[in-house]
Amino acid sequence: MTQRITLAHGAGGTKTEELIRGVFLDAFGNPVLNELADQATVVVERKRVSVSTDSYVVWPLFFPGGDIGKLSVYGTVNDLSVGGAIPLYMSASFIIEEGTELSLLERIARSMRDALRECNVSIITADTKVVERGKADGVFINTTGVGVVDECLELSARNIEEGDVVLLSGSIAEHGAVILARRADIEVSFKSDCAPLHGLTSVMLDVGGVRLMRDVTRGGLATILNELADACGKGIIIEEALIPVREEVRGVCEILGVDPLYLACEGRLVAIVSPETADMVLHAMHRHPLGEGAVAVGRVTADRNGVVLKTTIGVERIVGRLSGENLPRIC
Amino acid sequence: MTQRITLAHGAGGTKTEELIRGVFLDAFGNPVLNELADQATVVVERKRVSVSTDSYVVWPLFFPGGDIGKLSVYGTVNDLSVGGAIPLYMSASFIIEEGTELSLLERIARSMRDALRECNVSIITADTKVVERGKADGVFINTTGVGVVDECLELSARNIEEGDVVLLSGSIAEHGAVILARRADIEVSFKSDCAPLHGLTSVMLDVGGVRLMRDVTRGGLATILNELADACGKGIIIEEALIPVREEVRGVCEILGVDPLYLACEGRLVAIVSPETADMVLHAMHRHPLGEGAVAVGRVTADRNGVVLKTTIGVERIVGRLSGENLPRIC
Repeated sequence: MTQRITLAHGAGGTKTEELIRGVFLDAFGNPVLNELADQATVVVERKRVSVSTDSYVVWPLFFPGGDIGKLSVYGTVNDLSVGGAIPLYMSASFIIEEGTELSLLERIARSMRDALRECNVSIITADTKVVERGKADGVFINTTGVGVVDECLELSARNIEEGDVVLLSGSIAEHGAVILARRADIEVSFKSDCAPLHGLTSVMLDVGGVRLMRDVTRGGLATILNELADACGKGIIIEEALIPVREEVRGVCEILGVDPLYLACEGRLVAIVSPETADMVLHAMHRHPLGEGAVAVGRVTADRNGVVLKTTIGVERIVGRLSGENLPRIC
Repeated sequence: MTQRITLAHGAGGTKTEELIRGVFLDAFGNPVLNELADQATVVVERKRVSVSTDSYVVWPLFFPGGDIGKLSVYGTVNDLSVGGAIPLYMSASFIIEEGTELSLLERIARSMRDALRECNVSIITADTKVVERGKADGVFINTTGVGVVDECLELSARNIEEGDVVLLSGSIAEHGAVILARRADIEVSFKSDCAPLHGLTSVMLDVGGVRLMRDVTRGGLATILNELADACGKGIIIEEALIPVREEVRGVCEILGVDPLYLACEGRLVAIVSPETADMVLHAMHRHPLGEGAVAVGRVTADRNGVVLKTTIGVERIVGRLSGENLPRIC
């Protein structure tokens, strides 16, 4: 018989313990988590500690190239990484809908386990809640990551100057397009780009001259660049012809009537880099598997506000932030 | 017109920014959070860092004595505090159902703000997701707390010895009974006991001799004591006559057919304390507003497994962990 999650699994008694031991400890077990205390204490050797949180509500739970479990690890690792932190620890909290199949939870937990190993991160404390059927949608996962930042590193919008170069680590919109295609029952041969960026950011920071980085998630490249432009009070000009979009992704976007500039990635970043080191940073990126397709797509300007796109036919147009709902539950 | 949350509020574009600035920054704003980065970096002056996470799905969202916002701050502060940590920072992540009234979110955010001030804790990083109507139930909140632990403090089940004293900080089951009564439309004059325990744990730790503490939440006193007994591989014997339960709480439990030993508190703790310092710890608790009703309810035994209750008529019976669903969405 198919085993399903019941409200008893969330009540804090024997059934909760069974679920924790059978599914979560089995996948994530380590000496700190195994204590099963309501908090975890770890030794952190540097004074600058970085924290990032995200709740993952992606639908569908499984998609070409990934699933909610993988995404919940990579997404939080990426937020720490682009902030210049080395990810070390993570908390995980599950909100599960009554009736969810136990085997589905197990698949998600195994996927998280593999992603954690890839990122060299441990889950040190966790939580499980169950809500009645129809009061959630399968599984929601929150992860909060803790990392450390080098004492000397300063990533700040305040350091961004006119003439700084905008680097993009690879082709855009694959994650968003896969999710959209999956929901519209369109078959595609490409996958979500979801991937952990800690290795890539590490080689970039080793070169130096990186002012600020952001992973390109909800809202897409256009929105993230607008946020960067606002943060530094300058303008950003990008060239459409330089922004890599896979042909098939472009096709799906056309069918669905969406602009790839506003679709999320889950394994790409943009970096604002000093003109002196931009070539070296780009070169370092090219030698990393997740930066093979990295390109310089534009630069920072003093005299403009917001983001300007120079189109392939030479026209300049202002590219605003995402407005409207576009793509709910993308991550 | 009533303003309601739409999917656009969760899409990562202009509407998301409006929500973040209008509701969350307005309530929680501080220099770190105001950066609106996807991660926050803070300086932590001690090497032992404690992390605790909980997702809050309590229903109803507002109840006599508290609401989901307050609970989401106190609950995580309490998990850190009973672990011996001084709570410093918190992340907050909101999963909001489409159609939720904006004014309801504002009330919750203000309640969190007041609770944060009371605990001297700042939200340094946050996240907002919106899911379609019928795919969540109003608002779910995850908070993850970060605190620091004194280098010399050692709270561990390994230190628990036969003869150690079990202290309980006050009367039990009020939070659980209020929630149950509210759902059954029973009018009660008592309130949830929800409260932050960081001050109380601090005065207790100052005395010394505390082996281990736990806040009495999901599963109630009986379940928490069973977890403590299992953790130290010893037995615990408690006296029914010594466990404070308010008369009205007992009445509600009788009407609803539940045992107060299994109902959650949200502002009470149990501590296992050495016999040498137990009286002094108890005395220190009595001088704190949240420990006025503290009592020694039992002791640790070597020859028993699990938790034994000595009833008012002198009979001893084994008290197991909570089994079954009892009370879903209590926190």
